[in-house]
Amino acid sequence: MKGIKIVTIGGGSSYTPELVEGLIQYYDELPVRELWLVDIPEGKEKLEIVGNLAKRMVKKAGVPMNIHLTLDRRAALEDADFVTTQIRVGQLDARIIDESIPLKYGMIGQETNGAGGLFKGLRTIPIILEITKDMAELCPKAWLINFTNPAGMLTEAVLRYGKIKKVIGLCNVPIGMEMTIANMLEVDSSRIHVEFAGLNHMVFGTHVYLDGMEVTAQVLDLLGSGKVSMTMKNIIGLDWDRDFLKALKIIPCPYHRYYYKHKEMLEHELEELKKTGTRGAAVKQIEKELFEVYKDPDLAVKPSQLENRGGAYYSYAACRLIRSIYNDKRDIQPVNVRNNGAIIGLPEGAAVEVSCMITKDGPKPLAVGELPVAVRGLVQQIKSFEQLAVEAAVTGDYHLALLAMTIHPLVTSDVIGKKILNEMLEAHKKYLPQFFR
Amino acid sequence: MKGIKIVTIGGGSSYTPELVEGLIQYYDELPVRELWLVDIPEGKEKLEIVGNLAKRMVKKAGVPMNIHLTLDRRAALEDADFVTTQIRVGQLDARIIDESIPLKYGMIGQETNGAGGLFKGLRTIPIILEITKDMAELCPKAWLINFTNPAGMLTEAVLRYGKIKKVIGLCNVPIGMEMTIANMLEVDSSRIHVEFAGLNHMVFGTHVYLDGMEVTAQVLDLLGSGKVSMTMKNIIGLDWDRDFLKALKIIPCPYHRYYYKHKEMLEHELEELKKTGTRGAAVKQIEKELFEVYKDPDLAVKPSQLENRGGAYYSYAACRLIRSIYNDKRDIQPVNVRNNGAIIGLPEGAAVEVSCMITKDGPKPLAVGELPVAVRGLVQQIKSFEQLAVEAAVTGDYHLALLAMTIHPLVTSDVIGKKILNEMLEAHKKYLPQFFR
Amino acid sequence: MKGIKIVTIGGGSSYTPELVEGLIQYYDELPVRELWLVDIPEGKEKLEIVGNLAKRMVKKAGVPMNIHLTLDRRAALEDADFVTTQIRVGQLDARIIDESIPLKYGMIGQETNGAGGLFKGLRTIPIILEITKDMAELCPKAWLINFTNPAGMLTEAVLRYGKIKKVIGLCNVPIGMEMTIANMLEVDSSRIHVEFAGLNHMVFGTHVYLDGMEVTAQVLDLLGSGKVSMTMKNIIGLDWDRDFLKALKIIPCPYHRYYYKHKEMLEHELEELKKTGTRGAAVKQIEKELFEVYKDPDLAVKPSQLENRGGAYYSYAACRLIRSIYNDKRDIQPVNVRNNGAIIGLPEGAAVEVSCMITKDGPKPLAVGELPVAVRGLVQQIKSFEQLAVEAAVTGDYHLALLAMTIHPLVTSDVIGKKILNEMLEAHKKYLPQFFR
Amino acid sequence: MKGIKIVTIGGGSSYTPELVEGLIQYYDELPVRELWLVDIPEGKEKLEIVGNLAKRMVKKAGVPMNIHLTLDRRAALEDADFVTTQIRVGQLDARIIDESIPLKYGMIGQETNGAGGLFKGLRTIPIILEITKDMAELCPKAWLINFTNPAGMLTEAVLRYGKIKKVIGLCNVPIGMEMTIANMLEVDSSRIHVEFAGLNHMVFGTHVYLDGMEVTAQVLDLLGSGKVSMTMKNIIGLDWDRDFLKALKIIPCPYHRYYYKHKEMLEHELEELKKTGTRGAAVKQIEKELFEVYKDPDLAVKPSQLENRGGAYYSYAACRLIRSIYNDKRDIQPVNVRNNGAIIGLPEGAAVEVSCMITKDGPKPLAVGELPVAVRGLVQQIKSFEQLAVEAAVTGDYHLALLAMTIHPLVTSDVIGKKILNEMLEAHKKYLPQFFR
Repeated sequence: MKGIKIVTIGGGSSYTPELVEGLIQYYDELPVRELWLVDIPEGKEKLEIVGNLAKRMVKKAGVPMNIHLTLDRRAALEDADFVTTQIRVGQLDARIIDESIPLKYGMIGQETNGAGGLFKGLRTIPIILEITKDMAELCPKAWLINFTNPAGMLTEAVLRYGKIKKVIGLCNVPIGMEMTIANMLEVDSSRIHVEFAGLNHMVFGTHVYLDGMEVTAQVLDLLGSGKVSMTMKNIIGLDWDRDFLKALKIIPCPYHRYYYKHKEMLEHELEELKKTGTRGAAVKQIEKELFEVYKDPDLAVKPSQLENRGGAYYSYAACRLIRSIYNDKRDIQPVNVRNNGAIIGLPEGAAVEVSCMITKDGPKPLAVGELPVAVRGLVQQIKSFEQLAVEAAVTGDYHLALLAMTIHPLVTSDVIGKKILNEMLEAHKKYLPQFFR
Repeated sequence: MKGIKIVTIGGGSSYTPELVEGLIQYYDELPVRELWLVDIPEGKEKLEIVGNLAKRMVKKAGVPMNIHLTLDRRAALEDADFVTTQIRVGQLDARIIDESIPLKYGMIGQETNGAGGLFKGLRTIPIILEITKDMAELCPKAWLINFTNPAGMLTEAVLRYGKIKKVIGLCNVPIGMEMTIANMLEVDSSRIHVEFAGLNHMVFGTHVYLDGMEVTAQVLDLLGSGKVSMTMKNIIGLDWDRDFLKALKIIPCPYHRYYYKHKEMLEHELEELKKTGTRGAAVKQIEKELFEVYKDPDLAVKPSQLENRGGAYYSYAACRLIRSIYNDKRDIQPVNVRNNGAIIGLPEGAAVEVSCMITKDGPKPLAVGELPVAVRGLVQQIKSFEQLAVEAAVTGDYHLALLAMTIHPLVTSDVIGKKILNEMLEAHKKYLPQFFR
Repeated sequence: MKGIKIVTIGGGSSYTPELVEGLIQYYDELPVRELWLVDIPEGKEKLEIVGNLAKRMVKKAGVPMNIHLTLDRRAALEDADFVTTQIRVGQLDARIIDESIPLKYGMIGQETNGAGGLFKGLRTIPIILEITKDMAELCPKAWLINFTNPAGMLTEAVLRYGKIKKVIGLCNVPIGMEMTIANMLEVDSSRIHVEFAGLNHMVFGTHVYLDGMEVTAQVLDLLGSGKVSMTMKNIIGLDWDRDFLKALKIIPCPYHRYYYKHKEMLEHELEELKKTGTRGAAVKQIEKELFEVYKDPDLAVKPSQLENRGGAYYSYAACRLIRSIYNDKRDIQPVNVRNNGAIIGLPEGAAVEVSCMITKDGPKPLAVGELPVAVRGLVQQIKSFEQLAVEAAVTGDYHLALLAMTIHPLVTSDVIGKKILNEMLEAHKKYLPQFFR
Repeated sequence: MKGIKIVTIGGGSSYTPELVEGLIQYYDELPVRELWLVDIPEGKEKLEIVGNLAKRMVKKAGVPMNIHLTLDRRAALEDADFVTTQIRVGQLDARIIDESIPLKYGMIGQETNGAGGLFKGLRTIPIILEITKDMAELCPKAWLINFTNPAGMLTEAVLRYGKIKKVIGLCNVPIGMEMTIANMLEVDSSRIHVEFAGLNHMVFGTHVYLDGMEVTAQVLDLLGSGKVSMTMKNIIGLDWDRDFLKALKIIPCPYHRYYYKHKEMLEHELEELKKTGTRGAAVKQIEKELFEVYKDPDLAVKPSQLENRGGAYYSYAACRLIRSIYNDKRDIQPVNVRNNGAIIGLPEGAAVEVSCMITKDGPKPLAVGELPVAVRGLVQQIKSFEQLAVEAAVTGDYHLALLAMTIHPLVTSDVIGKKILNEMLEAHKKYLPQFFR
């Protein structure tokens, strides 16, 4: 066995040391011979900083993994076994626009949901589809593991329009939920098994098992107690109403606060904007500091400051996924894949985030049946939004983009939705050539 | 043929003269021998006022229709052919509560949608189910034509828990849309055919035909032009964005403004509340004046003031429906019935509002296929809300009521939703014994 | 209004006088200005015989309908309003092959079912698809009314691969059932309403109404009594078991005997073959005699001998369908159309035979819901057969044809099925160029 | 951990030594403290013979497993962890009737398919449902692992009408297919992974993987080569047509020969009947001999003669299933469970045979999506048959039984089906009290 070749597009990301750390830890089960970090010219400096840190890390760890840094994507892709993507079209400045324009009009401004998520999708989908074209030509047998947000929309885009079909969308939300639940129950996470179903950033834990025995009600009660919080770095941990959780019977993900606490989240965002500016601006500062740390030639491990960045467990999620595919493990992991009937009522060809058996032939979703009646509509609404957004991204059709915008539950006016759309199209013009042909 | 017996429950309603006028006009095709107007003791005075007006109306018209006034529902129901319901549990004071408590918490307060619609349903469903018990015993072959709001939820309740299965929910929204479209196109309504699909107060005109040729795009363009408005007495006619309608491709009903213009509708309601109080309070005043008019012993026709009350075309809709059943007409009318697969993706047993062939054996829905992807989620969400509301009404389960409340798109916070629920439960306690056992 | 132009492809058929008679009778509602009878060079003689009879018929009837005879299909199609097809690729000799080869191997040999139906489809589908190409170019607004068998398979082929979408498959089986039921009940057929659902030659009467009251059980009991028979000219009227019909609860069509009486039908066919040869050979003789009758220059009406040919009510069915489209009648007729969810469980895009509202915009199916559990599998099996047959016809793929053959319930062996396939491919080679490229 | 209690109903079966052997081998992972063998008074002698052999086996193996023999089912069930059923209502004489009466009328006579399978179901379902009543009372947390045929129908019956929901139907057909495929490919079975989907005795291998790489086409080609055969002791291994398999694209199970080689299988059965009598009669002789062997007090291992009996791998399948539940293994095994949407198009609540993740909370099916179009109809037909058979068994409704009989593809005549039904009802009268009330 010659060893594995992994190509990471957007390799200059501040998250890369996280990934490299994981690959080092998993080396026995996942013998990566070559790791290619690819970036675009604008990212050359970051790529070099982070790439050199990565080289120091593998050297210190003593694993025979070759790190290659390049701006030539096609050269990198040749004969790859796995391609991971962690790109940010328009970089953090684009994110700041995604967050601030909607808020100006009194609507949620968020990176992956609502108007912001729509535009992140519109910018990113064409690039992901180009990557699949290269892959179809240069490494047709490789798996595309997409970490880029909005991961559900991107997976859907590749499933429908990509030149390859071997795509998996990966997100750290479910694994984060699993870890939080283990902490709540004060047990090791290996004793916990959570069944996940829904969409990316709209996923539910439908059943929780501890040593094989269902403890879902207990987890819901703990979560509603106000004593523990399940959230992400970028989402304020507003407490759930205990009775609401009891009524819901399944575990919402942190992002569900945007929907079930829309009013409070909007008020909070507007306050934060006044106080500290957008999350994007804050992240920009964190990143700047991080790269200063990365430059230190004596640093040869993932620095602890990376934790402030968010993205916890991404590396773990990525490595265990690639490992299970590589070794045909047939274990269960939550990923974004073609529905294939796993969730009744959503289209067979839609991307869903569900617990899957991970095999060398890819993820095979477990049959969820119907989602509980209480959440079916919201999930369908977001799926419809994603479908329309994908169509809009691919065609550059203004009306499809307007429709996607207006049906999103976080955009509560057709007239204002259109204003936001128009202003964002203009602001992101450079990255949206399909709308200006 | 012995002639038809119709029983109208809630016969003391101010709408009754509208119905009587219709029955007089349709007498040739619909020979009603007996019309029983039934009410509860609290409504005795109104029943007599309106009943006497009805008697004067048939006398003047010279049709041999006997009007009976009674407080004894069971006596009235015996051997009825059709039972119509136009009841208001808790009367207009309850409506005022439905409108004002949610607004106090910054949420839409509306009679048939959101928190208000939920509580109207919780109060009314047990009464409708009791009526079906009586009908099963006293007139098992009769059709229940329900005009009472929320009509979709009530139809669903009867389909699932009623002792009879011959139920049709009837609403004047679709017929009003059809009339407005005819006006827009400046043609007689007989030349127009609109295909309807969706739910009650969430219905879409999916296709419009003029003399058999599709003119949907033209109608959408007119509707988005701002020159004409399609609305109801109780809904402000805020203009639709033209591009949004073009993108949507189907015709929203007036109530869709609550969803696609949520922000503006809420602002408008809050302003109105300050300026003029709730719609319920306004209606109460209109009703008071109307009944003064009805008392006039010289009045023997439907007075023109009734138009201010709203409810346009109700009589027309009701009479043409009953006539088509009675005569096995097999013509097409939009009503609320068991889905039976007509709308793919909604449960087979759910109540939907769709174009149906009206036969002596009841309405047979036309197959709609899937609703456009853009509206599927919202429709599912409202259907889920209705299903949970029905379960809550039947069981008196607090958590189900909370769930129904919180998942409604017009209630944008779990925590506030619960406060509204608690305050409304207390305010309507008298009419909600199932929650206080 | 300029009057209607109808083009009949396969106009030299012996059925044409039936159609012409209908058009004369319906002239008031259906003012046909031009009827073009089109045929291929091999059919020139027949075309002239039957065309001249048609001319004598309209002249005698005194209607201003122009009959045109031509071998130039494209010239005929220009600006047509309706195109009807009644073609027979390979003529009766091909039918004789379709009937005799399967029987040689001990399998049902029948024109429209099983191995015979498969081959009739394989020969005819490419021709129908060519016609739709011409129509898309020359008369894109016209409706294609296809009478040609196997009508379900051909409708499916046009829906999936045709260049036009305005296609309706028409069969005389449902109307024949309706007439027989009226006879059984000894009432005029106008008082009867039958709801149909299923596939072509696999259709069920799911509900029968007399004056709007359901009488299905009574009809089933009469049908099982052995006193009356519901069948076609070409199907032996073997009696149904009364208890089986009672258990089935819906009314099978005459062709269902091939499935529920497979054993007896096969035995009967084998006997008939010995005694009198194939049905195709018998028809050939009838046709020969008919054309002798048609030649009579004094004949100016449809001769009574045509009844022996079968095809009862075809003319009535065709004329009332075209009339209802032309006049936007919105009445209910059973035709083959896109399912669109009307029958739950069959693909949305599949051709089904169901009761439809007939409008200027085409047929709109009534929602059937799920077929009774007892028949769901058989119907799905035939639908699968049709789908595979269509794919095989379009691609010329041997394995798809073999699969269609083998899964058909009237072909009870993979090994023998393959022998039949091979021999029939060879026998029909001339008409199956797609398999010999 | 106190160790496991297993109760085997029908413990006097000749298969029991197979099970005991497995339990001994798996003891480390599956520490069975108590094995209760239960039988009915008529089976007392066999129970003792086989029970004593079992005792000698565990003694020789040196495992601390207590074997209990009893005729008191309720006493045995108390606090059981797993209940396995391997009963035969009416014993082998009933099987002989199931096989011979249909053959007399020219129809397939087989233990688990067609008329024979129907009657085996009608006799056994009431008994299984009684067992679930006892379980609900005496060991509500136990899993029912049903080996009894027809396993699909019985699982469906318990899912719909059982007093417990923890039921799994287990069959040795899929595991046998997996073993045969490994042999064909000349690799160890651990390197093979087969995805299964369908119904019991109507299951397909939809994908075969060798070391994670798909080899389905290669397996189909080997299977069609005529060099290897995949079959069961009780099914003649008629060769598949190679092109048919290539066209089918998925791997049929041995029982599919009854459908795709109906003609040959029927001819073979009729010949065998003449030559050697029914399979049931042969088995009766084998069993007689087996029990003579079992009596040998020196025998303390499973005797090799048991292989002639059939049922290969049953023990292995049973033990690995119970082990994976007990240890929450989350590995993949093919079992009969509630569909839950795993196979699109079959009812959510239907029993299906699919690859499942086996957990302490039971089997969780993998989402199959839609079955290939070619097999969808046949599978639906058998599922419909099973559903009707279950209804008939529970209600004792003659017409439902007739309907189940007639729609089965192996019963090719309504009239003859009824004769078979009537004769079999009479012959099995003693075991079918529900039909004679």
